[in-house]
Amino acid sequence: MTRWPLPATMTLALEQAREAAESGEVPIGAVVVKDGRVVGRGRNGPRERHDPTSHAEIEAIRAAARFLGNERLEGCELWVTLEPCAMCAGAIAHARIARLYYAASDPKGGAVEHGARVFDHPQCLHRPEVYAGIGEAEAADLLRGFFRQRR
Amino acid sequence: MTRWPLPATMTLALEQAREAAESGEVPIGAVVVKDGRVVGRGRNGPRERHDPTSHAEIEAIRAAARFLGNERLEGCELWVTLEPCAMCAGAIAHARIARLYYAASDPKGGAVEHGARVFDHPQCLHRPEVYAGIGEAEAADLLRGFFRQRR
Repeated sequence: MTRWPLPATMTLALEQAREAAESGEVPIGAVVVKDGRVVGRGRNGPRERHDPTSHAEIEAIRAAARFLGNERLEGCELWVTLEPCAMCAGAIAHARIARLYYAASDPKGGAVEHGARVFDHPQCLHRPEVYAGIGEAEAADLLRGFFRQRR
Repeated sequence: MTRWPLPATMTLALEQAREAAESGEVPIGAVVVKDGRVVGRGRNGPRERHDPTSHAEIEAIRAAARFLGNERLEGCELWVTLEPCAMCAGAIAHARIARLYYAASDPKGGAVEHGARVFDHPQCLHRPEVYAGIGEAEAADLLRGFFRQRR
């Protein structure tokens, strides 16, 4: 059997997740892409950075906005290894991300297809196109391996 | 008639909101308080900072976590002039804020008593005590004045 290869952008997000694990942080990674070019990357790091907002998506969005000199990331894609939480889904809407691709879904903390379903309310002023499941097994393996080691 | 005075903490949050307006940003301000002492303050500033996550609550939480050297703000209060959006409500939960006090409610973008109601789902791992309406008129006046000027 030949496995369909992962898009390079999700491979980059998974690399960011691995870097998080190496620093002892929950392995979640993200990249922001504009016109096929990476304009921001980020990985989970709240503990070492003493910053509860330091999720992969927030770091990648902040990096991209800084790089582009604009708080609105119109026409950008966000690739992330886990379903975003409410905080990150809200940031994705504020940033006007055009397309969101995530790997594993997160019934425990997700807020896209679970819980707060942030994009599904009229109070959400921008709703990205959402694609899920790309690299799901790889992302979930990373998380499982991390938590197994910690137990 | 004697108007009941505002708590000093909400007065400080309103000052932060005024500073935002002076910089041409939507006037919303916040402070984080621990044991009666201000440990972080923030004001809305996404445009000038090129950062879509630069809401008053996020700035105040990041400042407090940096100051205290801990990503968990246990036992802290957050005072903010407007009902938090989904992003900020999520950040409040991640930061383990014990008590949230906000002035005006926000039917258009709020996510505490409106829309996503972030704290009301099992996916929200920490729910602060919530107190609303303290300084409501002052906070709403600031916002109305700002948008009137811009029209």
